[in-house]
Amino acid sequence: MTETYLLKPIGWVRKQDGRQGIIEVEAAYLPALLGLAQYSHVWVIFWFHENDNPRDRGILQVHPCRNPANPLTGVFATRAPVRPNLIGLSAARLLGMEGHRVILAGLDAREGTPVLDMKPYLAESDAIHEATGPSLLPHVEDGVKPRDG
Amino acid sequence: MTETYLLKPIGWVRKQDGRQGIIEVEAAYLPALLGLAQYSHVWVIFWFHENDNPRDRGILQVHPCRNPANPLTGVFATRAPVRPNLIGLSAARLLGMEGHRVILAGLDAREGTPVLDMKPYLAESDAIHEATGPSLLPHVEDGVKPRDG
Repeated sequence: MTETYLLKPIGWVRKQDGRQGIIEVEAAYLPALLGLAQYSHVWVIFWFHENDNPRDRGILQVHPCRNPANPLTGVFATRAPVRPNLIGLSAARLLGMEGHRVILAGLDAREGTPVLDMKPYLAESDAIHEATGPSLLPHVEDGVKPRDG
Repeated sequence: MTETYLLKPIGWVRKQDGRQGIIEVEAAYLPALLGLAQYSHVWVIFWFHENDNPRDRGILQVHPCRNPANPLTGVFATRAPVRPNLIGLSAARLLGMEGHRVILAGLDAREGTPVLDMKPYLAESDAIHEATGPSLLPHVEDGVKPRDG
């Protein structure tokens, strides 16, 4: 018996334009935004909906940054948008709030992306200055926003 | 029509003991760990399974840190374990890997917690030194690990 859990979108990425993005939160969840404006940065957790098919959810290794010169790497060691559970994670700067619209800078998610959750960025637990990892070669495709890690 | 998405655990938090925790990754996902050992820190994304019921998923506002002296706050402005989608997020230091066991320090998730995803911590995008937020009063219960944000 395999357990499964059910997600439903709480909003959507809209008008992602250059460095500014807007999340439109569903009206039912408006009370859940109370107090968010006190934070300078938020985590946005979203669903890589374009890859929600058995093939992409079965991919366990990729070349990071879609660059074949980077060594084949497990998806749990990348931020690639293909993974068993299609959860995306991006920290963004909170520019403002207008009712159910959350205006952000630096959100790494495409327009139309379903949003699953938002959380305040807590510097004391989340900002790990000393974190290290391998050097990766950059993305090889031009004109496409990098999505892989 | 409301869209929904399906999650399945890729592993479980085991032997969470003080500051050290172990994730046992399901054997099927072992290839997805390739290369993770190169990183000093990882994000663990997990499911607050104890709260997976309509009542807790319907809670939209809480007193942060379960302290009634903190003002009522929307769950998207807290790290509370009650929220519409029960996604938990914790950065942890990678101490080592033993086959399908990932040994971590500082993982803020209880033993038995289903793990949904792991991602490398990327300092250049994730470590936001200047992030700010309100001051909160500490947790009021003794002997219980704080879970609220």
